[in-house]
Formats: sequence, structure tokens, C-alpha cells
Amino acid sequence: MKDLSPVTFIISIMLALLSVFMILPVAFVGFTDSPNAEAFLFSATGVFTLALIGMLMTRGHSRYLKPRYMFILTISSWFLISLFAAVPLYFSDLNLSVTDALFESVSGITTTGSTVFSGLDEMSPDILYWRSILQWIGGIGIIGMFVAVLPALGIGGMRLFTTESSEWTDKALPRMKTLGRGLVFVYVSFTILCMLTYLASGMSVFDAVNHGFTTIATGGFSTSDQSMGKFADSNLLMLEASFFLILGALPFFLYVREINGQHGVLWRDQQVRAFLLLVIVVTLIMTTYRLWNETGDPFSLFTATLFNVTSILTTAGFASEEYQLWGPFAFAGFFFLMFVGGCSGSTTGGMKIFRFQLSFMVLREQFKRLLHPRAVLTRKYNDRAVSDEIIASMIAYAFMFLACLLAGTMALSFFGLDFITSLSGTLTALTNVGPGLGDTIGPAGNFQSLPDEVKWILCFGMIAGRLELLSVMVVLSPGFWKG
Amino acid sequence: MKDLSPVTFIISIMLALLSVFMILPVAFVGFTDSPNAEAFLFSATGVFTLALIGMLMTRGHSRYLKPRYMFILTISSWFLISLFAAVPLYFSDLNLSVTDALFESVSGITTTGSTVFSGLDEMSPDILYWRSILQWIGGIGIIGMFVAVLPALGIGGMRLFTTESSEWTDKALPRMKTLGRGLVFVYVSFTILCMLTYLASGMSVFDAVNHGFTTIATGGFSTSDQSMGKFADSNLLMLEASFFLILGALPFFLYVREINGQHGVLWRDQQVRAFLLLVIVVTLIMTTYRLWNETGDPFSLFTATLFNVTSILTTAGFASEEYQLWGPFAFAGFFFLMFVGGCSGSTTGGMKIFRFQLSFMVLREQFKRLLHPRAVLTRKYNDRAVSDEIIASMIAYAFMFLACLLAGTMALSFFGLDFITSLSGTLTALTNVGPGLGDTIGPAGNFQSLPDEVKWILCFGMIAGRLELLSVMVVLSPGFWKG
Repeated sequence: MKDLSPVTFIISIMLALLSVFMILPVAFVGFTDSPNAEAFLFSATGVFTLALIGMLMTRGHSRYLKPRYMFILTISSWFLISLFAAVPLYFSDLNLSVTDALFESVSGITTTGSTVFSGLDEMSPDILYWRSILQWIGGIGIIGMFVAVLPALGIGGMRLFTTESSEWTDKALPRMKTLGRGLVFVYVSFTILCMLTYLASGMSVFDAVNHGFTTIATGGFSTSDQSMGKFADSNLLMLEASFFLILGALPFFLYVREINGQHGVLWRDQQVRAFLLLVIVVTLIMTTYRLWNETGDPFSLFTATLFNVTSILTTAGFASEEYQLWGPFAFAGFFFLMFVGGCSGSTTGGMKIFRFQLSFMVLREQFKRLLHPRAVLTRKYNDRAVSDEIIASMIAYAFMFLACLLAGTMALSFFGLDFITSLSGTLTALTNVGPGLGDTIGPAGNFQSLPDEVKWILCFGMIAGRLELLSVMVVLSPGFWKG
Repeated sequence: MKDLSPVTFIISIMLALLSVFMILPVAFVGFTDSPNAEAFLFSATGVFTLALIGMLMTRGHSRYLKPRYMFILTISSWFLISLFAAVPLYFSDLNLSVTDALFESVSGITTTGSTVFSGLDEMSPDILYWRSILQWIGGIGIIGMFVAVLPALGIGGMRLFTTESSEWTDKALPRMKTLGRGLVFVYVSFTILCMLTYLASGMSVFDAVNHGFTTIATGGFSTSDQSMGKFADSNLLMLEASFFLILGALPFFLYVREINGQHGVLWRDQQVRAFLLLVIVVTLIMTTYRLWNETGDPFSLFTATLFNVTSILTTAGFASEEYQLWGPFAFAGFFFLMFVGGCSGSTTGGMKIFRFQLSFMVLREQFKRLLHPRAVLTRKYNDRAVSDEIIASMIAYAFMFLACLLAGTMALSFFGLDFITSLSGTLTALTNVGPGLGDTIGPAGNFQSLPDEVKWILCFGMIAGRLELLSVMVVLSPGFWKG
């Protein structure tokens, strides 16, 4: 139990921060205009009290974290924050079930953006603010995790992104702090910039602030049942939203390096180049396909295609129209786009672009080996040698991903959901995209009508997906609890 | 061009054999009762003449085959045999288009079992015999390929199955010949045994012979539009068919070893154990699910479930009923079962059971490594060390498989097919299963109504899938033609 002290301490600090964020919706709307002011303030007080008790109880204990407890910290922090973030939703004027409150909270914190709410356009503004803030917290949370935790744990090939500061030594700590401050600065600046841009292009203050939060976090929660369809008439807004989504999908530590004088690191990064190329190629193919099949203003059609493609590729999951109606080619395309995700170190989910690049590298290598069995080959990614261990770790991730997709699909279909809903529902949870495919959970639908059991399964999927699966699964493996 | 001499010579021998097989349908039915006797005999003569010319032209040339030409031989032999096997179909009384004749021929030779024919129950018996014989030839063809070619080429992790005889040295040649004779003996014996069993259990001679050919080959062509549904009333036949399908799905070289006195090798083999376990577990789960949802005789329900599950797992693709109606859980289950396939060295297609085992091995290894970063780990499969190279080669295969699935699905949906048809159609071609999912190409439908372009794509997919993808793709890579 003593070993759990540092875990309790760190989570208590996180909860204290969460309680401060809980006051924001009321502050934004104004106490008298906030229908759920009491729910928020009551929850904030409760969570803060708990956090305080946790901190006091573990004050002065050792801060040393055994590797095994790093996993426990990682997972329990995301589970507990989701749980406590659901409290104000549960006590709000929406009369939600525990399941629905938790689902919305998990979907927020993991920046997934699947929703069980409808009637967003008439919903209390404090609730809408809270959903957007949750995604924004989740976004910076995952960026921090990527820098501080995941490479050190060696999850799914992420050792590729270790730096001197991910060593968790006393020497590395100051560097880590500097990097952390840089990341927060970039994240906040981008958010404000995005809000101001939206505002200047015609959104209301309320819409600009909310969508600013959820764009940079590549979250996908909106203030309207139409999602970004509310602004689909403005080509400018579609372009701007696509731009800021892409900003959110690139590795944030590279922005910090650019600011610190390492000019060009962003552009030279293999992840960044591949991701941008993919956005461009897919948008062009999809636009051509649509121009062939549809009539309408070509430029609007281009901006809408760019926006919806970008939104799925960045795992935000906003929609500006019902893209399932673009034809079977587009439908299949969106299915595969849901797997991809953005860059490691960004706010996006998905399998991440670098894993596809590594796989492709192995494939090319095998082609060479088939023809020249004795050739000596070396793998490099961003000028770093890619060891067999990194490849093995990446396969483990990919295999686990497909195994979870199988298990989730079977579980959902067991509860009676049709194949496309089961498959795309599991997929969209694991990749933190948001909408699925089909009539129920597609871009025009929502997750409200699903059975409670399914919502719980998807909650688990969203958190597991957010934490690169292996970090969650290893804790569930029997070996973890031995010795 | 001179390098192509051995390729031409070997293919000529194969075509000469094919021409002999072309006489069989007429021989079985009797010349006067065979409506397409002329088509078959004319084709046989033509193909034999061509083969003779090929053999005479390359007589006395060097027999040495450069590695690069091994790939060319592998691919061109399957393409050319499919092409010539289509000739009698094209000239038959069915009035087929070139596309349809070729599709049926490729589907036969690759033991896929997708069909563009309907009205099988009234079709000329010589045509039905020819389809069954094609699958039977394809079955022994792939067993031979597995022993003689694929491990030597190092395709998709198959180096794991190299033996002394796969070295292609002069010393290894006698061993290879003995093994080859053993394989033919086992294959023929199993086929005759299967036919006699079917006959004894109530099938007509015609049905027993045809289904005997296509069961051992795990092919899936039938003599009825109902497929094995024609015999669904007989629990005994369902059990027997399942048994012989499983026989066809195990590694044939192990049967030869058993006969040669190495008792127990079959049962000790990790592939065999995993495959049998999978059949049992999936059948039990699916039967339980059905017992819960359906009424009817439990034993019949069990035998039908066993048969249809086995049929998809062995990539035969027979159906005894419309299993898509068993409920969404079964539907999703059959989708995933289509990926698996049987054992390497059998007549089955699919990704093959050993690749899942290797992936799972890597996953378990990673779990250990996450908890004990300094642990020294060794991988073993069937008492053989599994090198990083074998793992890399397996990833290359898996990545190529998924890339082909993506490309095929996009291509099919481009021609207007719905998502489930596009996805399952590509999948069923790549894994050589046979039927897809959905209303069009599901177990109760067929491939007749698909656009010609789609049929050509699927033909390519069936051959590429049959040859473990990489052997085909490497020839299409620019590097192959350099130097």
C-alpha cells in the first residue's frame, strides 16, 4: 500500500486541477445565467476536498515510483478523472443516467467526441462549455503523457521518441519542466489563436470559444447537433478549421523546438511530412470522386471534403455534412481513414502515422531480401536506427489493436447491433475518432440509443485506445500482479 | 530470354498434365452423354500441342533456375494454368463471357470456390466435373508449392517451415521426390476415402465424386445452388464433411511423416493443435449462441454450426444454410473467421494459423518486456528458434495483406458496390474462402451480377492470395526488374 502513495499524491494534484476547471463553465456563463451553477460548484468543492485529503494523507511520503506503479498511475488517473468529471453532468438539469454521464465524460477526456446528447443547440451553455473544456484538458493531458510517460514505458514502438528528458532521472527533471512549460504555452496560444480566428470569421463568442477548445484538442464536441454543419456555408471557416485541426495533429514537442531556435525540425520530421501528404492526397482523390458524382460549387465541395477528411484523419470527428451519402467509395474511404490517426505527440488518437511508416519500411526491406537474400539492410526513422525491438513492440501494438477490434465488434454484435455499427463503433472508440458509420452512430446520428452494456464497453475502449492499448492491457495481464 | 527456358519447360509439363485432366470430365460422363465433349477434347488437344511445342523448344536447355525466375515461374504457372483451364468453359454450352469463364477457372484453381454460375443443379455434368477437378488440381498444386517453393523463397515467415529438402540442391532432390510421392499418395487416398464415405452415407456417385474432390481441396464448389444445403438433413454427412475438411486443413507433409514412422508428429505440431482448438471453441460458442436464439433439434443445430464454421475456417466456403441469418453475433463472427485460414502446408488459404501464433508470441514477449525491461527472451515455435527475420517477414505479409484488403475494398466500392460487399468480396478472394457477406455475394448469393472490372480484380486477388501475396507483389515492384 505504501507504494501507492506517490500514485495517490499525483492523482490528487490532478483532481485539484480538475476541480478548478469545474468552476470555469460557471465563470464563463455567469453565476446567475448558469442553470447548473450549483452542480458545478458542488462538484468542484467535493472533488477539491477529496484531492486535499489525498494530498495531506500522502504528504512527506516517498515520491519514488516503481515502474509497475507507473502503469497503475497512468491508467487510474484517466479512469478517475473521467469518473469525477462526470459528476457535474450527473447532477445537471439533463437528468442523465450514471452510464450516460460517464460515457460523455470519458468521450470528452479522451478527446473522442462520441456523444449521447441530442438537442445540443438548446442545451444549457455551462454544460456545453464543460464538454469542450473536458476535451481541452484531455488534449494537453495526452501531449504530456506522450512526453513524460509513454516512451519511457516503451509502449508500441514509442521508444522511438525517447529524448534525454524522458529518462526520469534527477538530471533530466529540469529539462522536462522546461519542455512542459513550452508545451502548455504552445497549446494555450494555438487555442486562443483558433478562437480569435473563428470569431473574426463569423462565429459567436460562445461558438468560437467552444470550438476553439475542441479543435486544438482534435476532440470533436460541438455546440450543435449539426456539428460543424452549422458553419458549412462558410468556406473560410471550413478552411480555418481544417488548418487548426492539422495544427493539433502534429507533434507538439516539435513546435517547442521550433520556438527554441531549432528551425525546420517540424518540416524535416518524417511523421509530419507523411501526415500532410496523406491529407492532401486523400482530399484530392475524394474531391475528384465527388466532382464526378455530384453537382454544386466546386470550391465549396473542395472545402467540405478537406474539412471532413481532415476531421476524421485527425480523429476529431467533427462533420459538416452527412459524408456517408457521398457514395460507396467515400464510405469505404472513411472507414479506412478512421484507423490512421495523426502524429505521435499530438492530440490525435488512432494507430498513428509512424506505425504505418515503420510497417512499410519492413515491407520494403522484405522485398529487397527476397531478391537479395544476403543484403545487409539498416532501418532509419528520422535519422534514428530502428531496432528489431522497436519493430516487435509495434507489432505487439498492432496485433493488440486488431484483437481489441475483434473482441469489441463481437461484444457489440452480441448485444444485437448490426455489423457496421459494431465494427465502426468499436473502431471509433479505439481510435478516439468520435462518430462511427451507419445509420445509428454515423456522422448524423449519436450514441444515445445504444444499450448500457455497449456504452460501458465503448468507455473502456476509448480509455484503452487513448493510452495506446498495451499500457492498459499489461495491467490486466496475470503476469502484472505476480511477484 | 534464355533464362526463361527452364520456366517455359516446367510450365509446359504442367500444361501437358492439365490437358490430360481435361479428358477426365468426358471420361467420367461418357463421350455420348457429355454435352461438351468436343469443347473438352478440342481444348485438351490444343493445350497439349502448345505444351509439346514448349517442351521441344526448350529441350536440352539449361535447367538451372535463377532465384528471380523462381518468382516468375511461380506466378506465371498459376496465371497460365487458370487461363488454359478456362478454355473448355468458354467453348462450353454455357455461352460464357471471357471474364466469367476466367473467373470460374481462377476460383477453381485457387480453391476459392466463388462462383459466377447459377442453375448448377441442371448444369451439364461434364462442366461440374471440370470445376471439381480444377479445385482438386489446385489443392495438390498448393501443397507442392508449399514444400518445394515457398519456404525456399522465404515468403511471409514461411522460412519457419524449411526442411533439408527445400534447399534445391542436387543432394536434396531425391528427398524432395520421395516427399512428393508421399504427398500425392496421401492426397489421393484421402480423396478416395472421402468419396467412399459420402457414397456410403447417401450421396449419389456423381455428388460423392464431385464433393470428394472439392472437400479435400477445401475448395467449396458444389453440384447444387444450395451448396451442401442439399445434404443438410443428414447430420452424418455434415459431420463427415467437417471431418474431411479438417483433414484437408492440416499440414500434408506431417501425414507423410506419420506414414514414414514418425508417429505423433501431427498431434505434437503447434499449428495443428491451435487449429483444432479454434474449430472446437468457435463451434461451441456459436452453437451456444444459436441454442439461445433459435429453436430446433439441438444436435442438428450443432452439426450445422460445426460444418459451416469448419467450412469457413478451412476456407472451403461450402454453406449448408444461410448463416447470415443466425444473428448479428454470428455475422460478425463469420467475418473474422474469413481471415484465419488453416495450417501452412495444407490446401487452405487465409492468413494461416501460425501467423496469429507468432503475433501472439510477440505480444506476450512485449508484455514481459514492459514489466522486466532487461529480461532475456527467446522465441520458439515447434522447437525451432524464431528469428527476428522471420518475424519481420511475417509483418511484411500481414501489412501487405491489409494493404491489399484496403486497395481491393476501395476498388470494388469505386465500381459502386456497397461497403460490406466490397470488404467481404476482397477478403474472400484474398483468403480463398469463396462466399462473401451481404445479400449479393453471401452464402446464398453468387458473383454473377458483379461488374466485369470487379471480377478481374477479384481474379487477381485470388491468385495473389493463393501465392501468399508477397511472391506476386515482389514481381510487380520496380526493384524486381532492375539489374
